[in-house]
Amino acid sequence: MTFGSYGNPGYGITRTLSGVSVDDAIARISGALADEGFGILSEINVQQTLKTKLDADVQPYVILGACSPNLALQAIREEAGIGLVMPCNVVVCEMEEGQVSVSIIDPVALFKTIGRPDMTAFAEDVRVQLERAISSL
Amino acid sequence: MTFGSYGNPGYGITRTLSGVSVDDAIARISGALADEGFGILSEINVQQTLKTKLDADVQPYVILGACSPNLALQAIREEAGIGLVMPCNVVVCEMEEGQVSVSIIDPVALFKTIGRPDMTAFAEDVRVQLERAISSL
Repeated sequence: MTFGSYGNPGYGITRTLSGVSVDDAIARISGALADEGFGILSEINVQQTLKTKLDADVQPYVILGACSPNLALQAIREEAGIGLVMPCNVVVCEMEEGQVSVSIIDPVALFKTIGRPDMTAFAEDVRVQLERAISSL
Repeated sequence: MTFGSYGNPGYGITRTLSGVSVDDAIARISGALADEGFGILSEINVQQTLKTKLDADVQPYVILGACSPNLALQAIREEAGIGLVMPCNVVVCEMEEGQVSVSIIDPVALFKTIGRPDMTAFAEDVRVQLERAISSL
């Protein structure tokens, strides 16, 4: 069983890479994010978790948690609860062999959750950095 | 330097525990979530990360990533991009010694990000489980 095409979710910044493995894509996006000051703080292998827990077969799907310490500190000082929507998630998902989608949460879309329109400019600045990382792949 | 009171963010399900350490609170919420079928897939020590990376001092603040494999599989089949807002974050934050806030993201608020009003009933069902976990602490 696989799920549908990853597509291009409106709440993500997405690019599909050709001729790469999931591990290659993870290495590339991790490097691109590092250039923008984001480290990877967590990695969840969804495919493996669903196989182990439910014996369900889905395509390779990994969630990385990317965090810029400077931005995190600014955000948490401004809105203490913001850890509920941190870090920035990156989904790396193989649609077919050699076709890997890399998608980062759009912080402007995500910030709808917290209901702080006065933080939109901050979210837009973060988005510019994440777009630059995706563009550089 | 500390940031402001954790408070009671409108996008979280929050409870403050007295007379416990952060580690106690993590153990209790992890157990309560396990009773609802949620495992902890990631743990980010924000306090330690900000100290190491920026030499900034903030109060103890940990982000746990909680995931129910059954719910995750349902969600991902319905909306492939949903990994961008998974797993459910739990913030465990010490406000003063022995006063620890435990807060779980409200999935109904979070789902505003993905713009799928037809998945509201699903998010509400998840919220019931998370509220039960918080109530049992």
